[in-house]
Amino acid sequence: MNLPGTICINEQGHLQVGDCDVVELARTFGTPLYIYDEMGIRQKCREYHRALAANYQDYKVLYASKAFSSLAICRLMEQEGLGLDVVSGGELYTALAADFPPEKIYFHGNNKSIEELNLALSAGVGYIVVDNPWELENLAQLAAGRKTRVKILLRLTPGIETHTHHYIQTGQLDSKFGISLSGGAAMEVVKRALALPEIELVGIHCHIGSQVFNSASFRFAAERMIDFMAAVKEETGHQLTVLNLGGGLGISYTENDQPDPIDTYIEGIAATVKEACANYNLPLPTLVVEPGRSLVGEAGIAVYRVGTVKEIHGVRTYASVDGGMADNPRPALYQARYQALVANKANAPREQTYTIAGKCCESGDILIQDIELPRLVPGDLIAVLSSGAYQYAMASNYNRLPRPAVITVAQGRAEIIVRRETYSDLIRCDRIPPAWTEKDTLPAVM
Amino acid sequence: MNLPGTICINEQGHLQVGDCDVVELARTFGTPLYIYDEMGIRQKCREYHRALAANYQDYKVLYASKAFSSLAICRLMEQEGLGLDVVSGGELYTALAADFPPEKIYFHGNNKSIEELNLALSAGVGYIVVDNPWELENLAQLAAGRKTRVKILLRLTPGIETHTHHYIQTGQLDSKFGISLSGGAAMEVVKRALALPEIELVGIHCHIGSQVFNSASFRFAAERMIDFMAAVKEETGHQLTVLNLGGGLGISYTENDQPDPIDTYIEGIAATVKEACANYNLPLPTLVVEPGRSLVGEAGIAVYRVGTVKEIHGVRTYASVDGGMADNPRPALYQARYQALVANKANAPREQTYTIAGKCCESGDILIQDIELPRLVPGDLIAVLSSGAYQYAMASNYNRLPRPAVITVAQGRAEIIVRRETYSDLIRCDRIPPAWTEKDTLPAVM
Repeated sequence: MNLPGTICINEQGHLQVGDCDVVELARTFGTPLYIYDEMGIRQKCREYHRALAANYQDYKVLYASKAFSSLAICRLMEQEGLGLDVVSGGELYTALAADFPPEKIYFHGNNKSIEELNLALSAGVGYIVVDNPWELENLAQLAAGRKTRVKILLRLTPGIETHTHHYIQTGQLDSKFGISLSGGAAMEVVKRALALPEIELVGIHCHIGSQVFNSASFRFAAERMIDFMAAVKEETGHQLTVLNLGGGLGISYTENDQPDPIDTYIEGIAATVKEACANYNLPLPTLVVEPGRSLVGEAGIAVYRVGTVKEIHGVRTYASVDGGMADNPRPALYQARYQALVANKANAPREQTYTIAGKCCESGDILIQDIELPRLVPGDLIAVLSSGAYQYAMASNYNRLPRPAVITVAQGRAEIIVRRETYSDLIRCDRIPPAWTEKDTLPAVM
Repeated sequence: MNLPGTICINEQGHLQVGDCDVVELARTFGTPLYIYDEMGIRQKCREYHRALAANYQDYKVLYASKAFSSLAICRLMEQEGLGLDVVSGGELYTALAADFPPEKIYFHGNNKSIEELNLALSAGVGYIVVDNPWELENLAQLAAGRKTRVKILLRLTPGIETHTHHYIQTGQLDSKFGISLSGGAAMEVVKRALALPEIELVGIHCHIGSQVFNSASFRFAAERMIDFMAAVKEETGHQLTVLNLGGGLGISYTENDQPDPIDTYIEGIAATVKEACANYNLPLPTLVVEPGRSLVGEAGIAVYRVGTVKEIHGVRTYASVDGGMADNPRPALYQARYQALVANKANAPREQTYTIAGKCCESGDILIQDIELPRLVPGDLIAVLSSGAYQYAMASNYNRLPRPAVITVAQGRAEIIVRRETYSDLIRCDRIPPAWTEKDTLPAVM
């Protein structure tokens, strides 16, 4: 098994991350526990910078914070010189609360509310990625009211089908996102944007999907986008200066997943953009990429404690852990598959097949179906790899399970970046109507 | 369309619940908004009581609080004379915080932690529904430490396959839940329980699945359970006095869903239990049922506001709303289908096909695929029916969307029972490690 970043197995045969023993971390911080390898994330950020600097002049890397949004991760991304992609008022609020420079924020979303657009304008967000004509008109009106001008990109759907789960395939024609490149719709919106004095149309954006392994799809999308930039130049005379190709590069969840390395992906799109611009005699735009999963996914580990082992003779052996679909809905949602280790006996031979079941009262709450592991007993620690993206971000309180703690580890030091929820957190928004406190007011039913 | 409870269309052509105009409610409380028809819930509670009282002597109805757990709903269920089924420390904590009588609580779960079992023992919970031999031993040890005796039911899997989504099918042999009736495993655990002085084995429990339409499966499960009660009597001489048949009766999400009515279901299981006991010459046990969805599901409405309408010529028309998979993951998880109305023009002719998309940055965030509705414009209110179960309970902060408010309505009065989350709620658990506030401490990466 290929362990990414600083993840390794130490002399006691325990899983180790950031020079911290995972068995110790579980004892100190409890389980379920999300552990981020701080250096693993920083390393990925620097790989993007290095690959872009080597292959392209004017570029920006944005962290797609929907993969895991929190104050600490925003701060880390700022330290690493990245911009930020936010998709809601809540993600924007989080970034601002972490003192993230607003001018480096790009605001996405297929259905931004007036309140969210106002929040973005008040904060001085760098770019609004406009999804559709309604949003364009709303935004122009709000900007006019503030006597300001707002920089936008237009989100376009290049009509590309990628090989990924259909829930996270977003570049195809039949999409709730963006404006189709085909049929003239996009050009119409460009012209409208250019006619609005409050709108400064600086570029275009696309996002073809998530967990994409082969960079060829990205290169094909880049070509289509530059075709469109050339068409805009020809039809309106307007030179678009920003090309945002979104995110979507996959990571390795299991050994079957073989995504292109970051530098192959970046080299590919950089070469395509340069070639296509040369063909059209266009100046090179600022190239923007928006990785999310590929920055934080492999750096995260989810650690659970086994509570029960149940062998159903001739059928299956279940090991039940103290988390599950409440903190990680990906297996139930996308039939996602994972690799795992037993953190307290990481070198022991894998001699039995288990199904790792979660704690929720639902048969669908299975974290991993059929995995070979060392023989399990209650108290063992299951460490699920590649758990850094779209897990804590999607966590719920289903079955009223408090959400886990999230920590970062580096150089033997652990820091809580999201504290564990308590039972009292669960009821903090609850109210009992005053009339319901008196039994004798029990209403009659028709 | 068959509107349940007090839901109707008023003279202005607006949707109305509990004598409150839904358009007004959306204006007052904002959207997305979960609205519960208080009388609708009370009516269902009383239907269960009535059907059981008419068909069986000694019975209990428990509310399966995982369908929607909150302080207010626990209070309401207590007012209606129901007991409570909880599946975690968090649900138990919620019940206790609502002053729910602990002796009327049944504690379920396939992987209860020591901390949860201790919480249950401290609180004086009525019954622990023991899932497996590990739990039995843990519980006996904890009870011994407290010099107390604890009443338990054993959870059994009767080996019944029901016609429902495989995620929520729980009675079959290959299940993470309970102890199999086949192969002698269950009898072994019974004998062990009878040998433990701290354990008072009063009965058995099964739950065959959720959203089950045909009561025949329940009757079949009841037979298998009474076969087992008779076998226990014969083999050990011990008379089990409680038979808990779980929940699982389905509700109508769309017109294709035709669940048996509550009284048909109750009549069926009551008759089966009486007949089977007579055959074995067993005294009638206390009959316990645990409805969740069938009490609160149809009484809930989720109301969203349309932000954008996007027609992709020849392909599909998307209407995007201000909620989605973050507050209701059921369509993405179970391919669940729903009926909906436009609350502000509930009588207008349904003349166009829409796909109702959510606000999350994910193509899978589709609430309803292909529904006929009146022509939509931004600002319209989509009311999704049968939204009372497993929606707010499963809500996340995905994309950092604050969770909606939940209100109850009755006789023209609305009460907030769960307040809307704010942006500051989203970051309340977040921390930035102190070292990360100084830029010059940026660590080197190997």
